[in-house]
Amino acid sequence: MISYPDNERLLAAIESYLAQRELPTEPERLYAPMGYSLAEGGKRLRPMLLMLACGIFSDDTAPAMPAAAAVEVFHNFTLLHDDIMDNAALRRGKPSVQARWGRNVALLSGDAMLISAYRLLAATPARLLPRILEVFNDMAIGVCEGQQYDMDFEEQSEVSVEEYMRMIELKTSVLLGGAVTIGAIIGGADRADCRTLNRFAIELGFAFQLQDDLLDSYGDERTLGKPIGGDILEGKKSYLTVVAMSRATEEERETLRTLHRNPELTPESKIETARAIYDRCDVRRLTEQQIAIKFDRALSMLDRLSVGAERTQRMREYAAGLIGRNR
Amino acid sequence: MISYPDNERLLAAIESYLAQRELPTEPERLYAPMGYSLAEGGKRLRPMLLMLACGIFSDDTAPAMPAAAAVEVFHNFTLLHDDIMDNAALRRGKPSVQARWGRNVALLSGDAMLISAYRLLAATPARLLPRILEVFNDMAIGVCEGQQYDMDFEEQSEVSVEEYMRMIELKTSVLLGGAVTIGAIIGGADRADCRTLNRFAIELGFAFQLQDDLLDSYGDERTLGKPIGGDILEGKKSYLTVVAMSRATEEERETLRTLHRNPELTPESKIETARAIYDRCDVRRLTEQQIAIKFDRALSMLDRLSVGAERTQRMREYAAGLIGRNR
Repeated sequence: MISYPDNERLLAAIESYLAQRELPTEPERLYAPMGYSLAEGGKRLRPMLLMLACGIFSDDTAPAMPAAAAVEVFHNFTLLHDDIMDNAALRRGKPSVQARWGRNVALLSGDAMLISAYRLLAATPARLLPRILEVFNDMAIGVCEGQQYDMDFEEQSEVSVEEYMRMIELKTSVLLGGAVTIGAIIGGADRADCRTLNRFAIELGFAFQLQDDLLDSYGDERTLGKPIGGDILEGKKSYLTVVAMSRATEEERETLRTLHRNPELTPESKIETARAIYDRCDVRRLTEQQIAIKFDRALSMLDRLSVGAERTQRMREYAAGLIGRNR
Repeated sequence: MISYPDNERLLAAIESYLAQRELPTEPERLYAPMGYSLAEGGKRLRPMLLMLACGIFSDDTAPAMPAAAAVEVFHNFTLLHDDIMDNAALRRGKPSVQARWGRNVALLSGDAMLISAYRLLAATPARLLPRILEVFNDMAIGVCEGQQYDMDFEEQSEVSVEEYMRMIELKTSVLLGGAVTIGAIIGGADRADCRTLNRFAIELGFAFQLQDDLLDSYGDERTLGKPIGGDILEGKKSYLTVVAMSRATEEERETLRTLHRNPELTPESKIETARAIYDRCDVRRLTEQQIAIKFDRALSMLDRLSVGAERTQRMREYAAGLIGRNR
């Protein structure tokens, strides 16, 4: 029988662990943005995956909590610095740290958050620390590489589907992979199971990111919590654009390239134009197909673990909820 | 008999260790700035202190090398991000990373350098890693706090001598303290010796920073390698200004406050005016006195260690060279 806390309780435990960490009050402009950023909530996807990964191998998930908090703090550090690089005014519907406190404050509190993530990690059981630190470091540097490719792509006129997949592997999947690997190590998994579970999270990350790209152009504003078409209006490269570019006529390609900076079109007609090209190129169906492929591949990894199916059930359900497969 | 490598060989070993680390070539704009920044040289003060601290307790200093490289990489990370915050065009007489590659590249490669520092640290003997990681984290967060206070001070019209000392303790001393503590732990020092050696480095850091402040206004351009009076012209708060402000007349204080943005004065006359006020307030002598006090206090800490005087001789000489007390 599996006896570690259910998902609702896990989430509550993560929230309370993050909230109870006492931050110093001085210097105010170093620590206030950290509290602001961490209080913003969200799904807590990465710590949830870490805890659930630990739960596959052990009912004692409590020792994984500091590392779960570490990956969440790390993720929020990347958001702070990404928002500086993108000059983003909003984050989760509220002013970004850089918009509210300025660029320098966001830069330095981001640094302090990255260090805080390592501080949390240091509370991991000592005998596991060397291995976990290595996984965390590899994950962290991978995310930086992904962000650099993402910025490089903004200046490139053409990005292939393969290049795009490599970028999101680094920027999104590697962090999920690191989270589940650390959880598995703390749960007592052997190296083979760690590798398999890492592969699960890499594939899940692909599915998750493609889903994110798809919803940005085709989602429902109410469930999404932000206006549809942001990627199209910003001229941001997404899975939809790179697939469309690989299948469109030269005329359509030129339209897609210049659409976001065309002063003669309203936002609505830009979104309409892009979606018309996507539809003609079958991009929506192809994306949904890829999401299904990645998701199935992820689940098949869970079957390969050395544990019984009942121990992976919770992870399976959580992953399905994430990709909207359980509705 | 002490048999670990002499200072020249230690420095060469540090340089070669830093140089031989193979950085990936892609993404180019993430890794090229790291190599550029680390190739700049300088005194390698922090890794030298770490190695010498290890050498006080053990002739086998080789296991300290990864951690020595880690503190140097960490230090260079702070320079990259400080240069963004200060919008600095030059670093050690060459274009800063942010001037050469742009702000976003400097931000992201700085992040990658901080992570690289932790990667180096992870190569430390596993049984010491939990303790060393804790020391490193405390040091790193202290440096961030110091930088925030430094930025806060730029917006404050008055900074007390006590506030200034607290800021440089965090921004400069804490990093030297962390370096020697980590070296001592790897050398096998007990906790009492670690604390004493940390205190040595904190005091040495004060002496070093006050010396730096003094040379900026009174040094010799040839030995300094940069023009005299930079702090005065930028209106930067230094030990000289905070002491002068505590002793000057109201008229002199107003002059010091507004000097750097006075459009009627040439750079030369600004420097001359500030130094005339410093001289009248006896600031130079008081600063030299404080440097001597901090330096003597630092050396007295070495006497309190549980080792014989011959084991601290190398550190004593190195510290003296740093403050210019052996010429």
